[in-house]
Order: sequence, then structure tokens, then C-alpha cells
Amino acid sequence: MLVENRGDGNIKSIILAGGSGTRLWPLSREHYPKQFLKLGKTSLFQNTFKRCLEISDIRDVFVVTNGSQKFFVSGQIKELGYDIPRENLLIEPKGNNTLPAICFGMQEIEKRYGKSTVGVFSSDHILDRSAMETIAGAEALVCDNLVTFGIVPRSPHTGYGYIKPAQALGPGYRVSEFIEKPALDNAKKYVKEGCLWNSGMFMFDTDIFFAELQAHEPSVFGAFQASDDIDEVYNNVPAVSIDYGIMEKSNRVAVVRLDEKWSDLGNFDAMYDEFEKDGYGNVVYGCDNVLIGSAGNLVYSKPNKLVSFIDVNEMVVVDTPDALLVCPRSSSQKVKDIVAALKNKDDERAYLHTTVYRPWGSYTILENSQRHKIKNITVMPDKRLSLQLHHHRSEHWVVVKGMACVHVDGKEFFLRPGESTFIRSGIKHRLSNPGKLQLEIIEVQLGDNVDEDDIIRFDDEYGRV
Amino acid sequence: MLVENRGDGNIKSIILAGGSGTRLWPLSREHYPKQFLKLGKTSLFQNTFKRCLEISDIRDVFVVTNGSQKFFVSGQIKELGYDIPRENLLIEPKGNNTLPAICFGMQEIEKRYGKSTVGVFSSDHILDRSAMETIAGAEALVCDNLVTFGIVPRSPHTGYGYIKPAQALGPGYRVSEFIEKPALDNAKKYVKEGCLWNSGMFMFDTDIFFAELQAHEPSVFGAFQASDDIDEVYNNVPAVSIDYGIMEKSNRVAVVRLDEKWSDLGNFDAMYDEFEKDGYGNVVYGCDNVLIGSAGNLVYSKPNKLVSFIDVNEMVVVDTPDALLVCPRSSSQKVKDIVAALKNKDDERAYLHTTVYRPWGSYTILENSQRHKIKNITVMPDKRLSLQLHHHRSEHWVVVKGMACVHVDGKEFFLRPGESTFIRSGIKHRLSNPGKLQLEIIEVQLGDNVDEDDIIRFDDEYGRV
Repeated sequence: MLVENRGDGNIKSIILAGGSGTRLWPLSREHYPKQFLKLGKTSLFQNTFKRCLEISDIRDVFVVTNGSQKFFVSGQIKELGYDIPRENLLIEPKGNNTLPAICFGMQEIEKRYGKSTVGVFSSDHILDRSAMETIAGAEALVCDNLVTFGIVPRSPHTGYGYIKPAQALGPGYRVSEFIEKPALDNAKKYVKEGCLWNSGMFMFDTDIFFAELQAHEPSVFGAFQASDDIDEVYNNVPAVSIDYGIMEKSNRVAVVRLDEKWSDLGNFDAMYDEFEKDGYGNVVYGCDNVLIGSAGNLVYSKPNKLVSFIDVNEMVVVDTPDALLVCPRSSSQKVKDIVAALKNKDDERAYLHTTVYRPWGSYTILENSQRHKIKNITVMPDKRLSLQLHHHRSEHWVVVKGMACVHVDGKEFFLRPGESTFIRSGIKHRLSNPGKLQLEIIEVQLGDNVDEDDIIRFDDEYGRV
Repeated sequence: MLVENRGDGNIKSIILAGGSGTRLWPLSREHYPKQFLKLGKTSLFQNTFKRCLEISDIRDVFVVTNGSQKFFVSGQIKELGYDIPRENLLIEPKGNNTLPAICFGMQEIEKRYGKSTVGVFSSDHILDRSAMETIAGAEALVCDNLVTFGIVPRSPHTGYGYIKPAQALGPGYRVSEFIEKPALDNAKKYVKEGCLWNSGMFMFDTDIFFAELQAHEPSVFGAFQASDDIDEVYNNVPAVSIDYGIMEKSNRVAVVRLDEKWSDLGNFDAMYDEFEKDGYGNVVYGCDNVLIGSAGNLVYSKPNKLVSFIDVNEMVVVDTPDALLVCPRSSSQKVKDIVAALKNKDDERAYLHTTVYRPWGSYTILENSQRHKIKNITVMPDKRLSLQLHHHRSEHWVVVKGMACVHVDGKEFFLRPGESTFIRSGIKHRLSNPGKLQLEIIEVQLGDNVDEDDIIRFDDEYGRV
């Protein structure tokens, strides 16, 4: 059953979905970040969206994202059976840390509704839906406070910041201190003292938020005041986090305790914690396996691959078609060093998967040489690719599943599974899926040059001409 | 320069090439064993073959192999620019350990030449070619002795058997004892005492060999005497090793010392020892890599894959398209346990690679689902596949490289790169390579059933009808 309106209409939601999480590389990459990964049936983003519907009307959920991720956002919402108004997708011209992203959302909401109460949520965290009741209860505090949410710690985690609560204040506490990620000894002390993990979720009243923003981070406030053009705003706004920009400076901050399962899945060790283990404490995700004398590992590979371990303990092994990561679980936080090394070498595996997502669907590169490339292409129902032409390659298309409508050199025809066509280089062509089911084709490209950039687009529904 | 005749004509050679080395799984598998793997420009088998030409005329080199590997043997010899007579390929009906295999070769040689001197060589060892001079010198001992070769140990290796030499005897020594693979303490003692590694190479006079065989292993001798039909012989011959059957029992055994680089590449740790290391003692084979804080590892993957390590030490990571192995180098000898576990589960990855070798070339499975399969097929010059038919699948062929001659439903035509054809299910067809270069095609199979066994062969050059 789809519930279109479950909020009380008072609380609006902002979901921050522009992150480029490289801490789960090679599983997540810049062009397919963690929040959109499906580790269960639904992605972290989808789970966040559903949580927001517990407190907000669907028309009052705003998603701040970027140009390359907006298709994930709308696609994954559609997959849940929902539709949000296009104007609720707020596209940042560039990533600039959390404060500008939140301002963007707060400003839109104030413009549209005037003074409002707004929940702010990261899209790449794990959180039980039951937490939303406590979160909604924080509304009682927002007329006087900037509210943050603190998780009751399960362990002296050194990967999270801590919040020290002071005297009780309605359903929460005054905040006495924000503490940066501590060393283990200090973390133990903070846990003992009743400190909370800083979850990065908030609830704000628009008036209080902008007043505190003007007081503590006038450059951000000024940039948003100065123009209605978001490109211009982002040219002038500094990159700053909400914690550093406002929360740590304001003396009107309250924290509400959440005694719930929560994780930011900040690295593979955190991911290990969240998944079901076998009798030897191994988390095996997605693949066949033979594990001999091996315990406490996180193993990820594709369904048809066999992963075999002998005497391997407490390791992370993440195998994707084009990149393999091996490290001790305790070194998981250094994965960003691999990504940095790849960026340094201009290796596109830092950003891209072999499966590349497009507004119309996706393609996976099965084989690639200088003179030929083989792709498995999936086109979503009712979508079509641009009308295009390649100078240096011909293409053979074989339909594997679904119904294709093919336009070649002015003629249009249908192809069913088992049927195929050939598109000579230099000929205008277009592929579309007129059906109600996914279309899957195998494309064999041949030519002097099979690079992605040998493409001239004549007409495109996604503005890429 | 190809040297067709370099031996003095006196020494014949037997190469044992029927092994199914699973100790380097998933790199080598039963259907593509270690001796045919190309870790350098040439395989271990090819290197062995070239070494034999140092002591034998090419017409006097015999290879004992099996039905599924004979195409590797002839193909790899051809690749070196040589041709051996078809009757020098001795096909065992089944694997039965080393003694029957050696008898098979010794009997053939005796039938053809009468009393002869014969060198016996494993095809899956590393040995410098310079050793052949010392080996040829052992001829002086064969008229009175069964000669074995002992390697001067480089370390107290526990993976090899040891041979204890007694008093000098011409260019060698009388053998006082054969010692099984020892524990480390004993191995150290043996090295100190001047014992040698048992290399599994021999030199025999046919007369002495059969006399000792009759004396010590009459069941094997009898099985070979009883019939000229090799299938019948192998129905009756017991599986027994040359060491256990004769060498350890005879008192006419001499050993010749070889002070040469040698290895049986018996596991990944031995393979690690043989390859060039980077500044941190990592052996990286075949793949891109980013190794951070990692030392002493053996890494193998395919050329387009990126392998990244953080804080990984003394490990073996072998990544193939369908199977990944991770283990400490010191656990390398347990790889056979993985293979055993797979055989137990009837998992064909125990035997087969995604690249499957056929007498006409090979194919690699790029993608496989219930209703479609994509293969990259390579056909060697002048070879053709069987005339065949599939009931449940249609096939699309796109030529990527070379020239194809295609026979479909009685018609024959040529396809050049970029050209394609379609073969409906139920239609007889045949693919051949009429050219002088390799033919490479992409095949997309579609149907209710895309299993390999949906094939009816009408005509086949390799006897598979």
C-alpha cells in the first residue's frame, strides 16, 4: 500500500543526496555513490525517502542533489512507486559541503511556504524507521533551538564525532560541546560520560536557522541573499559544513537522543558490522564461496564469481568486474588513499564502474579492445536514447529481452528478442523502448575508434545535444 | 633458428605431460593444467620440449599425454615452429600415476628402436637449459644403473623428497636412501648432510628398466606384456609412482647432482619464489595495481583489472574471471582443499576456465544467463568447427578480426570484420577460418536453452561426431 500523505503537514524534509562517497570504493564510486547502492532490496536513499514520509507529506520532501545524480534520485523514487514534483529536486551546481546544500533547501522551503519546520537528513545512513517518532517529537524544541540528533553509542567508536549533552530541555538537552572524532581512550571516556554520536541529522525552524546563519556564517547567508540564480550563489558561497559553520558556534543548540540502530556506513568495517554473519563471523555478500579456516571477513563479489579463502581472517575483499580491493578490516578507513592514488594517475576507475548509469537506463561493458567493444544495454520502459551518429564505429544490436524500436537513417522498425540490426558508421540512429518491460540488447561496436566520445547527438530528451 | 637435429641420436626423450595440476588453481585447472600455462612467453611444457632438443633428435622426443590435452601438446609444439610425428604423441586412456606413463613411453621406444637410452622429464618444472649438458653426461651410468637426478638444495624445503647420495660412481653417486617430504628440522639436517632434492627426472637403459620393473613391480610389467592394446593394458595396470614402484626398491640406482635453478612450481609460494619482485617483495603478474603498505605478496589478475591492497602482507591473491583465491603464502599448499570442496559440490569451476580450449581454437564466455550467452570465439588459421545444429538456440555471429567462412543451410559465404550473420535454431551450420591469421568472432546465443550440450554434430575433423 502506498501512502501518499502520512505527515501531519507541518514538518518538511530535506534529503541531502549529493555525496560522492568514495569510502566504499570500488563498490561505490563518484558516479554511483553509496546512497544509491542496493545492498538489500532498496538503497539507503530509498530507505531515507520512505522514512521522510513518516513525518512529511510527499509534496514536502525536497532532495538536494547534483546534475549527474538527479536521474538516480528520480529513478529510485519511481521504483518505490512514488513521484515527487520535479521542482522538489534541487540541483546544486557543484558540491560545496553541507551548509550551502542545507541553505539551498531551507531557502526553497521558506520561499514556498514561509516560516516552516524542516527535518534535514543524510541519504547514506542506516536508521530504523521507528526513529522517526522521536525525530518528529523534536518539533517541540525548534521554535527556540537548532536541534541536532545524537545516537546513544553502541561502542567507543573513533569514526564518529561526539555531542556532550548538558541540562535537560523539553524532549532533549542543551548541548555543552561538539567533539571531533576522538582517539580510542577519549572515545571510551565520552561513552562513559553519556556523550552521543553526532548523526548529522537536524531539525530547524526556518527563522531561527537563517538568524543563526547570518550571525555565525554571514558569507554563506550573504551569498544566498545576493542572488536568485543558484549558479551565481554557488560561485560565491564558501564550502563549509553545517557543524563548523553554525552548530558549533551557536548557543541555541539542543540535542535529542536517539536510542536506535544507526550507522553512517563510513567504511567497510562499518558495513561489516551491519550485515548478517555466518557461524565464523564472515559476511559474504552476493557471491558463491568456499571459505576454509577463515573468520571475521567481509566478502563481496558478483553472483557468478566464486570467492575462495584459506586461513584468511578479519579481512575485507571486495571484487568488482574492473577492480579488486583487499585490506584488513582495521585498515578500511584508508580506502580513500587508493581512490586518491587513482585520481592522481587519472585512472577513471576512481570515478566510474563498468556499469554506467544514464537517464534512459544503463550499460555494462563486457569486453573492450582497441577495435571492438561489447556492451549489454538496458533501456527502461518508455525511454529513448538520443538520435545520434558515430564517425568511426559500426554497431550491431541483438535484442535479448523486451521490444526495441529502432530508427536507422530515417526508417523506423521493431525488433523482438532474437532479432538484430546493423548500423553502419556515419548513419543517424536511435534506440527506444516502446514497451512496458525493460529492453535489453547486446551491442557489438567495431571500428578504428570505439571511444565513448565518438558521438554526435541531434536530438536528446535529457538536454545532452 | 630452428634446430631440427641437435641430439647425438643416442638419447631418446619422454616428456610426461598428462598431469592435472590443481595446486595452482584457479590459474591452472584440470582442463588447462600448469604445464600449458603461459606465465612467460612460453609455457613450461614448451620449455621442456626445447630442453629435450638439446639431447634428442626431434623425431626421438615422445610425449605421454591424454585425449583432452593432446591438442595443447601439438598446438604448443607448432607454436614453437616445430612438428613432431603424430605417432610420438602417446595418449594414455586414463591417468594412472607416473610408472605406467613411463612404461608406455619406454615400450614404444623399445619397439621402434630396440635397446635405447631414454631421458624422462616432467613437463611442469622450471629448469635452466644449461642442465641438459650434465643430464646428457649421465649416459655413462645407464648401462648398469637406473639414473635419477638430484638438485643441490637452495633451502631446507619441506615440499620436496630428498635423495641421500653414497659413494661416488662415475659422474654420479650410488643412492643410499630416498626420503619422503620431511618436516623442517629434518629437512635442515638433510641439507647439511648433502642430500639432494628428488627432481623426478630420470635416465634409463630400456633393458635395465624392464629388468628392474619385472623384478620389483611385476603387475605393471605383466599388464604391458599381456596386450598390445593400450586400453586393455590400462584396464589392468595399477596406479603407482616410479619412485615407489622401482626406484626405492632397486639396488641399482645412481643419482647425478644438478647444481641448477629448478622448481616444480608445486604451489603459489613456489611460484612466488621464481618471479621478479618489486622493491617491497611483491610479485605482481598481469594486472594494474595500487599496493599501499603491502609487502611480500603474489598478485595475479587479468590485464584490465585493477588490484588494490592496503596493509596486506605475505598473501597470495589470484583473480580469474570466474574465481578468486585469497590465502597467506604459507597456506599455499592447502589450495587442493578448495579444489576438493568444489569437486564435492560438483562445481565445474574445479575443472574448467571461462576460456575453454578446443582443437580448433578457444572460446571465452563473456556473459551467461538462462536465455542468452555471449562468447568470444577464436579459430586458428586453417581450422574449422564441426558441421552442427542446435535445437534450442539461435546464434548471431559478428566478425571482429580475420576472415570467416560460414556455411549455413547448404550455402557458403565469407564474412569480413564488421560483417555478421544469423543462424536460426534447427539449421545446420559450420564456421571455419580459411585465412592465415586468427579469426575472432562474437557470438550471441539466444534461446530456451543455451547449454553446451544442445549440439548435434554431423561432421567433425576431430572425431567428435
